[in-house]
Amino acid sequence: MKTILKSKSQELIIDTEGPVVVIGESINPTRRKKLVETLSLNNFELAIQLAKSQIEAGADVLDINVGYPGVDDAALLPATVKAIQEEVDVPLCIDSPNPKAIEAALKVIEGRCLINSVNGEEKSLEAILPLAKAYDAAIIGLVMDDDGITHDPEKRLRIAEKILKRAIKQGIKEEDVVIDPLAMAVSADPNACLVTLETIRLVHEKLGLNITQGASNISFGLPNRDVLNMAHMVLSIWNGLTCPIANPNKITTMVRAADLIRAKDDYAIRFTEHYQMMEMMKKI
Amino acid sequence: MKTILKSKSQELIIDTEGPVVVIGESINPTRRKKLVETLSLNNFELAIQLAKSQIEAGADVLDINVGYPGVDDAALLPATVKAIQEEVDVPLCIDSPNPKAIEAALKVIEGRCLINSVNGEEKSLEAILPLAKAYDAAIIGLVMDDDGITHDPEKRLRIAEKILKRAIKQGIKEEDVVIDPLAMAVSADPNACLVTLETIRLVHEKLGLNITQGASNISFGLPNRDVLNMAHMVLSIWNGLTCPIANPNKITTMVRAADLIRAKDDYAIRFTEHYQMMEMMKKI
Repeated sequence: MKTILKSKSQELIIDTEGPVVVIGESINPTRRKKLVETLSLNNFELAIQLAKSQIEAGADVLDINVGYPGVDDAALLPATVKAIQEEVDVPLCIDSPNPKAIEAALKVIEGRCLINSVNGEEKSLEAILPLAKAYDAAIIGLVMDDDGITHDPEKRLRIAEKILKRAIKQGIKEEDVVIDPLAMAVSADPNACLVTLETIRLVHEKLGLNITQGASNISFGLPNRDVLNMAHMVLSIWNGLTCPIANPNKITTMVRAADLIRAKDDYAIRFTEHYQMMEMMKKI
Repeated sequence: MKTILKSKSQELIIDTEGPVVVIGESINPTRRKKLVETLSLNNFELAIQLAKSQIEAGADVLDINVGYPGVDDAALLPATVKAIQEEVDVPLCIDSPNPKAIEAALKVIEGRCLINSVNGEEKSLEAILPLAKAYDAAIIGLVMDDDGITHDPEKRLRIAEKILKRAIKQGIKEEDVVIDPLAMAVSADPNACLVTLETIRLVHEKLGLNITQGASNISFGLPNRDVLNMAHMVLSIWNGLTCPIANPNKITTMVRAADLIRAKDDYAIRFTEHYQMMEMMKKI
């Protein structure tokens, strides 16, 4: 299954059979006080800098989230998108719980983006799916619905199926639905990661869709979070994750290692190139 | 399936359903010139130091290999074993291609050790299995035979089955056979890791035995070997590896992360304790 995204002049394929695509998460105000300060002043320098450094570190797509308390993201999200796509030429993933902000961003996007996200709630499906169809975007479908979050992987699969069916009914193509299996903190529930990994396996096997995940949640409340996140990332990729949303500085090396082990990187070309790039950046 | 090892006063269970057991690989002269020099003089200080530091870093068992060109390991292996078991109280894994060295070590072992290794070759089976039976030791069975090394996981499984059958015929208990699936360099063969991982999965599913692996081979000839080895280790554990032979300083953190993700470490107790131990050692 191939999800095609586009930037101004580039096409990117997220392929369930191909190597992993990294979606950079760092343009996000959570725990980035300086980003909030600059964006509040309509100053996009730091956001652009985060865009460039993530691409150097291996990001193929950039997630753009400008949500912070009091923000008018229906104005700020499209403004940020415009500023970033003037400077870099990779596809974007527009990230907001506010359908008005999503629509405003869709209006200015050059290319073909990913919407982050729709979920199984009626309200969400009704607000987001028509936008994805109207503006020809791909969508991330989060496996929660009006009953909340279930801990049963089979039930999460059924929510993924529901989102897929509703998207197809809306005229969206199957390959443009990317599923997020939901990752929860393993410190709160010892089975949290197993539930996520089994959901990934089921969605991969039964639906064959591309799968994303913002996985740094899993290590919430624990020490040594990077190691835990890396281990979870490798296992998620093994089970069917194809386009994680993560900090490329922390995750790309491990993603490339997983691809090499899975025989998705013959002669270790991408693994070695990424290593050389990281070494070069250290020296600068 | 439970493989029980013993040191002077401790019992250790390698359990296919339990957390991973780390076998420390570092008492091995390969690329350790200083160890060769000291062992050649019957000086065991460095070997003992390596034993202690590996246990601090998370080793549950110590592999003892004293093979270097020109060595009389039928004399040196038992002498090293004696020196180490006077100082530390963990089970040992005696590692030599020379059955005379294995037997000499078995004669001085206090407790119940692992023999590294037997393989599917007639000569090996005939030399090692009677020793394991006579001295009540567990064995590592390497999946190669008189035809050499196969790249077909199903054939590797059949060699594992052959070793198991021959061991049982010799009076060795099923649970005392630990399989090594063989890890080869992914730089030479893009499918090398997939073959190993599939062998692990098959041995786990069809035979239910404990599985070991000296996995640092897989990254031979590549940069950034530690990251690659870590990714391969996590995937091996996911597929059924239960007692890797590795450098605990490099691998235990990732092993603990994998156990936590697999719900083998409720409330992250072992993961957190290991992290605290590592932090403490940094400060000393």
